[in-house]
Amino acid sequence: MSTIRRFSPAADGGYAWDAVERLKYKDEGSAPFRDITRQVLFAQPDHASELRYFEIAPGGYSTLERHQHTHAVLILRGHGTVRIGPDTHPIGERDLVTVDPLVWHQFEAAADSPLGFLCLVARERDRPQLPSNEQRTELGG
Amino acid sequence: MSTIRRFSPAADGGYAWDAVERLKYKDEGSAPFRDITRQVLFAQPDHASELRYFEIAPGGYSTLERHQHTHAVLILRGHGTVRIGPDTHPIGERDLVTVDPLVWHQFEAAADSPLGFLCLVARERDRPQLPSNEQRTELGG
Repeated sequence: MSTIRRFSPAADGGYAWDAVERLKYKDEGSAPFRDITRQVLFAQPDHASELRYFEIAPGGYSTLERHQHTHAVLILRGHGTVRIGPDTHPIGERDLVTVDPLVWHQFEAAADSPLGFLCLVARERDRPQLPSNEQRTELGG
Repeated sequence: MSTIRRFSPAADGGYAWDAVERLKYKDEGSAPFRDITRQVLFAQPDHASELRYFEIAPGGYSTLERHQHTHAVLILRGHGTVRIGPDTHPIGERDLVTVDPLVWHQFEAAADSPLGFLCLVARERDRPQLPSNEQRTELGG
């Protein structure tokens, strides 16, 4: 059904929408991460892609990982950094980030700001890989 | 290649990004519309969907049309209205709109505000249909 779902921020200021569930980023203990939520904004039956919204609290970060599927990211709220391969870049509102296949990446909110972003992925996608201790050392992480 | 394309508004305040071309919405005369531009933000090779950004100047509007493919829209800038079938709804920043197959729809910026929105569509999609005079009259347009 055609719908309008209103933007409706949470009491803590976190971005949220009517009729959109705020989900866990991942199961606890499945991979390293901190203070991050996930919302599925669009998963249309005729689209083979999904648009999700992730929000990382100040000081939080996503998992350092890589996978075959690509990411297309638009920063919607706040600022922080993105690690892409060996490099770390500052990112802010409305910047666009693409992450290529099998490139290590990690998003991190600034200490004093949340980092909220849209992420477009193919609906059918491979599972993320985590770095070995050796790879992590090479990445300086 | 993994990239960061910076948000880089135009001199007139219009949303724009480094290395993203600001395109015509449609060819002039192909359908009724006013004061609207189109930018393709993401068209990843492994995604069967594209994310575009449309910006309508104050008082402008998109074409009244329908098609088999669905729209998934997130308002990014300003406010205005969306017509969905026989109804017109106010819309503002970060509201989410889905438009179902073959539902007539039209976006219009407020007289005093631009209306900018992300629109997710399947890469392979049917061409829009325009209303006949009779259908236009039924829709009150």
